[in-house]
Amino acid sequence: SDFLAIDGEFSGISDGPSVSALTNGFDTPEERYQKLKKHSMDFLLFQFGLCTFKYDHTEEKYIMKSFNFYIFPKPFNRSSPDVKFVCQSSSIDFLANQGFDFNKVFRNGIPYLNQEEERQLREQYDEKRSQANGVGSLSYISPNATKCPVTIPEDQKKFIEKVVEQIEDLLKNEENESLELEPCTGGLKYELLRKERYIAISKVNEEERKRREQQKQAKEQEELNDAVGFSRVVHAIANSGKLVIGHNMLLDVMHTIHQFYCPLPDVSNLLSLIHQNIFEDLAKWTFFHFNLFSSYFVSRLLDTKLMASTQPFKEIINNTSLAELEKRLKEVPFSPPKVESAEGFPSYDTASEQLHEAGYDAYITGLCFISMANFLGSFLSPPKNHVSARSKLIEPFFNKLFLMRVMDIPYLNLEGPDLQPKRDHVLHVTFPKEWKTSDLYQLFSAFGNIQVSWIDDTSAFVSLSQPEQVQIAVNTSRYAESYRIQTYAEYVEKKHEEKQAKRKCTEDSWKEMERKRLKTQCTPYVSQSRYYCVNSFTGTSTVGKRSMSPIQEETGSDDMEEEEGQDPEYDQTESCAEPLPDGKKRAKKFKKIKTEQVPAGKHNVHVQGFLFCLELP
Amino acid sequence: SDFLAIDGEFSGISDGPSVSALTNGFDTPEERYQKLKKHSMDFLLFQFGLCTFKYDHTEEKYIMKSFNFYIFPKPFNRSSPDVKFVCQSSSIDFLANQGFDFNKVFRNGIPYLNQEEERQLREQYDEKRSQANGVGSLSYISPNATKCPVTIPEDQKKFIEKVVEQIEDLLKNEENESLELEPCTGGLKYELLRKERYIAISKVNEEERKRREQQKQAKEQEELNDAVGFSRVVHAIANSGKLVIGHNMLLDVMHTIHQFYCPLPDVSNLLSLIHQNIFEDLAKWTFFHFNLFSSYFVSRLLDTKLMASTQPFKEIINNTSLAELEKRLKEVPFSPPKVESAEGFPSYDTASEQLHEAGYDAYITGLCFISMANFLGSFLSPPKNHVSARSKLIEPFFNKLFLMRVMDIPYLNLEGPDLQPKRDHVLHVTFPKEWKTSDLYQLFSAFGNIQVSWIDDTSAFVSLSQPEQVQIAVNTSRYAESYRIQTYAEYVEKKHEEKQAKRKCTEDSWKEMERKRLKTQCTPYVSQSRYYCVNSFTGTSTVGKRSMSPIQEETGSDDMEEEEGQDPEYDQTESCAEPLPDGKKRAKKFKKIKTEQVPAGKHNVHVQGFLFCLELP
Repeated sequence: SDFLAIDGEFSGISDGPSVSALTNGFDTPEERYQKLKKHSMDFLLFQFGLCTFKYDHTEEKYIMKSFNFYIFPKPFNRSSPDVKFVCQSSSIDFLANQGFDFNKVFRNGIPYLNQEEERQLREQYDEKRSQANGVGSLSYISPNATKCPVTIPEDQKKFIEKVVEQIEDLLKNEENESLELEPCTGGLKYELLRKERYIAISKVNEEERKRREQQKQAKEQEELNDAVGFSRVVHAIANSGKLVIGHNMLLDVMHTIHQFYCPLPDVSNLLSLIHQNIFEDLAKWTFFHFNLFSSYFVSRLLDTKLMASTQPFKEIINNTSLAELEKRLKEVPFSPPKVESAEGFPSYDTASEQLHEAGYDAYITGLCFISMANFLGSFLSPPKNHVSARSKLIEPFFNKLFLMRVMDIPYLNLEGPDLQPKRDHVLHVTFPKEWKTSDLYQLFSAFGNIQVSWIDDTSAFVSLSQPEQVQIAVNTSRYAESYRIQTYAEYVEKKHEEKQAKRKCTEDSWKEMERKRLKTQCTPYVSQSRYYCVNSFTGTSTVGKRSMSPIQEETGSDDMEEEEGQDPEYDQTESCAEPLPDGKKRAKKFKKIKTEQVPAGKHNVHVQGFLFCLELP
Repeated sequence: SDFLAIDGEFSGISDGPSVSALTNGFDTPEERYQKLKKHSMDFLLFQFGLCTFKYDHTEEKYIMKSFNFYIFPKPFNRSSPDVKFVCQSSSIDFLANQGFDFNKVFRNGIPYLNQEEERQLREQYDEKRSQANGVGSLSYISPNATKCPVTIPEDQKKFIEKVVEQIEDLLKNEENESLELEPCTGGLKYELLRKERYIAISKVNEEERKRREQQKQAKEQEELNDAVGFSRVVHAIANSGKLVIGHNMLLDVMHTIHQFYCPLPDVSNLLSLIHQNIFEDLAKWTFFHFNLFSSYFVSRLLDTKLMASTQPFKEIINNTSLAELEKRLKEVPFSPPKVESAEGFPSYDTASEQLHEAGYDAYITGLCFISMANFLGSFLSPPKNHVSARSKLIEPFFNKLFLMRVMDIPYLNLEGPDLQPKRDHVLHVTFPKEWKTSDLYQLFSAFGNIQVSWIDDTSAFVSLSQPEQVQIAVNTSRYAESYRIQTYAEYVEKKHEEKQAKRKCTEDSWKEMERKRLKTQCTPYVSQSRYYCVNSFTGTSTVGKRSMSPIQEETGSDDMEEEEGQDPEYDQTESCAEPLPDGKKRAKKFKKIKTEQVPAGKHNVHVQGFLFCLELP
C-alpha cells in the first residue's frame, strides 16, 4: 500500500478528576504526556481499525482495504499475565450507543503480548524444549515441583504396583508396541478432574521420536505466534516504513506503545540512563520522547487533525473534528477523493455514518488525508490532481502529533525540540477553593478580555490580552490575602527550583547551579524563529497583532471530547499554527549537532548539548 | 415468598498479587474482610440473580420465580458520577466461555445509585424545584452560571431585538395565546448543537401552570426512580425481612453493600466513631462488622456452603461447590425438592447446567437449601418432610457467612464475636524470597506432616501436627541466620504492638496499656466453649484427638476458585466446623451484656465491654 490509516477505540479515556485538569490550555508537551500516561493507560485499546490505501495510476483512484480488529488480553495459560483493565462507564455507554459489539471483544478478541511477555513465553518454551531433549539436569522433575516426593498411601499401593508391572512387561516384550493403562480408581485425587481419561504408553524408535519432536516444535511455534497475536500486526505496521495516518492520534500512539511494546516509561526515568545534569529539562524531554517514539515506530506518522489545523488548511477549515472534517473536505476548494474497496473487502458508506467503529474512522481519516494532500497539489505549477504519500509536499506534517486544547503549542514534535511559546501575557493565580470562574472574571475585570485555564481547585492560569498588563496585575495583588498572582515565568522558575531541590546535592548538581546562575545573567537572545507561534483568545477585540489565523476548536468532538460526552460548553478557544518548515528530513538517528535557541519568556530554556538531525534550511 | 436466593457475577475477583496471598489459611475474619475490601471492590457486580420461593401447602411444592438483572452504572446526566470499574481478563474470559452476554450489560444494563448519590440527586431536584417556584433568590440565573453576563455581538443584535419585540407583542395582545420563535441563525454558538430546534412561548393561566408543574414533578420523580434503578430492588430485598440465601456469599454481600449502599468502610475508621481504647481489637472488629451488615440487612442471611460444611451435613457431603452440592442433594439420604416455575416465568433445567448465569446459580442455591432444610426434618419425631424457612431448625445457620480457605474458622459471624481458634501448633516463619514450599518441607522434615500457608514472598505460616513440637522448632532455629521462626502467639503479639505503637500516646492509651499489663498477669481462663473448633490437616496420621470431623474442600470450585480458573492444585485442606448452637435469636439491637471469654493461644483476647444479645443456652 501507499499509506495506512489507523484508529483505536478504548474502554475509557481518563480516570483523572476532570477533563479541564487533564487538558490545561497551558500544558507543556511533557506535562501532557505525563498526564495521559498517568490517567489514560489503565484503559484497554480494544478495537483497532486499520485501512490500507493503494493508488491505482491507470484507474486514477485509490484501492482500500479496511480491517476491524477486536482485541482482548485472553490469558494464554496458567502462568500468563492476568491483565486488569479499567472501564469508564461514560465511554462504554457512548460506544454502546454506537452499537459497539462488546461480545466480539470479550468472546472473540485477538490476544496480544508485549515485548517482555513475549520474551518470557519464549524462554518458557526454550526451557521446556531443552528439558525434553535431556539437556537440563532436571528433566525428570516437573519444573514447578515444590512438593517433596509423595508417599504412596496404603490403599493405592496395589494399583501402582500393577502399573509398574505392566510397564516392565511392555519394555521386556518386543512384540508389544503400546499399552493403555486403565483409568485411575477411587482414592486417587485427580479422579474427579480426569474422569474418562487414561494414560497410553507406546514404544517409538529414534526416527519416530524425532518426527514427533519436530511436530511438537512446530505446534509450539504456532501457539507462540497465536499468543503474540495482534502485537505481530502492530509490529508490522510500525516497521513497514509506510506513512501511518491518524486523526488526533497522540492517545492512539501512546496506547499502542503501552499495550503492544512496553509500559510507557516515565520522563524522570531518563535520569537513570543519562546523568541528570547534562540536560536542561526541555532537552531531556526532547531526548526522551524522540527515543520513545522512534524506537518503536520506523514508520512516519501524520496527524490529520494537526494537518487540518495548519496552513494552508486552517484558513478554510472551521471544524477539525473527524466527522465534520470529512464533510468539509468533499466541498470546494477540495474535491472528494476517488476511493474504492478492494474485491472481497467490505465497503463503507460515508453517507450512513458508522462513526466510532475503528475501521470506519480509520477509513475516513484516510479520505481526509487524500483530499488535503491533493489540495496541496493545486499550488504547484502546473497543478497536480494527485499528490502521493511520498510527496515532498506533505513532509512538513510528518511526526507532529496534535496537542488537544493546548492554546499555543499545536503539536508534540516527535523529531526535535517542542515549540516554546512566549507566555508573557499569562498569570498563575492561586485562590481559595470556593472560587469559581466568575470570581476570576471579577478580579480581572479591569483588564478587559481574559481567558481562564483551570489547573486544580485552587489555581488557574489567567491570560490577559496585553502582556503590558501582566506587571500591573502582579503589583496590585501584592497585598491581597486570599489570592496570589505570579507571572508565568515566575511560576515555571519556582517549579523548576522545586524539582532541583528534590535532587540530591551532589557535586555535579552544584556545578550545574553555578552554571545556571551565570547564564541567567546574560541577556536572552530572541530569534525570529519560524517555529514560534503566539496565541489569541476568543473575542473580537483581541484579533490583530497577536492572532495569526485562528482555527476553531470543534464542539464536543474527537476522541476525548466526544467520547467522554462531557464538557460541551468548554470555551471554544482559538489556537493557531504557523506553516511548518518544509523539506525537513526525518531524523533517523540521534546525532550531536548545533545548538539552537528558541525564544521563551523571561525564563529562557536553551536546547543544548545533544540535538537532532533536524535540518533547518 | 418464603425465602429468596441471590447470586452475583462480577467483572473480576481479585486484583491482589496471588490467590494464596489473598486467602491465607490463617487469616482472621477481620484480615479477610480487609483483603476482600482492598482487592475486590473495584470490580463491578454486573449480573444479579434473584429467585423467590413460595411454598404451596396444598400442592406440597415450591413455586419459584427467577430473575436475571444486568446492571450497569450508566451515567444519568452530566453531573452524575462517571463510574470506573476494573475488569480482570481471566474472569471476563471465564464468563465469555459460559456464554455471558456482555452486550446486555453494557447496552441495556439497569443503572443504580448508592445512598449518597441518590441523596445528591434528590437535592438537585429539590433545588431546581424551589427555584422554579420562585423560592430561591437566584431563580433567573442558571445555578451553574460561572460566566459574567454576555455582551451581545453586533451582528446578533438585530435578531435579539426582533425576539424581544415579538414577546412584548405577545404579552400586550390578549388574543394571541402562543408564539413560535424562528430558529437561531448564523453566528449564534449553539446553532450547530440545536439545529432544527426553536423556542415556543405560550401564555398559561394559574390553573394550567399548576397542572404543568405537577406533571413535571411526576416526571421528575419517575426519572429519579429510574436513576436509583436497581438499588431499589436491593433495598427491597434487604428490608424484606425474608431469609436471603446465598452460596459462599460473603463476596456477594460485601459487593452489594459497596455498590448499592455505600463504599465499604475501613475497620480502623471505627476509631473516629468510638474511642479507640474502649475495645480490644477483636471486640472492635465484632462491633464493626455487626454494625456494617445489620445496618443494611434487616433480612437474615443464610450461606448454603457454610450449612453444607456444618453438622449434620459435613459428614455426608464431600464437595460443597455449588454444582456438586446440588447433585449430591438429589441423592439419598436427601430427596430432590419439588419446585416449579411460576406461570409466565422461565424454568431452569438442572440437567442442562447453566452454571454461572446468576439467576441459575441463585435457583440451585435455593434447591440446595430446601433439600438440606427438609433433611433436618427427618431428625424430628415424628419426622417432617417439609421444613419451612421459618423453622427453628435452621436458625443456627443464620447470619454466618462461609470463610473460604480459612482452616480453623468456618464462618464470619454477623451477630456476635468471631470464633477464636487455638493456634498453638502454628509457627510464623520468615525466610529469603528465593525459598519455595519444598525448602520449608525440608526445614521441618523432622516434624512429620506439616502444612504451609504462604503469606507473602518471604513469610508463611507452618502448622505442625503436634503443639508440643512448636517450642522445639523455635528453639532449634534460634541461631539460624537465613530464616526466623516464632510462635503464632508471638507473631500476633508483635503485630498488635506495632499497631499500638502507631497510635498516638495520649493519656487514655497510656491508661489502656496499664490496664492490659495488669490483665496479662492473670492466668487466662480457658472455657470449654461450644464455639470452639480446632483444625486438622490432610494426612492419615494426624486424624484423632485434634480432628473433629473433616469436610473436604472442593477442588477448584465456587466463585473465587472456579472463576479465577487458577490454582486447582491448591492443597485440599480439611477444615471442620462444630455444630452451631441452636435456638439463638437474631440480634436486632446492639446491647451491653455479659462478658464472654473465648479461648485462644498464649495471646488471650477478651471480648468485653459491649457485647451482643447472643443468647447462650
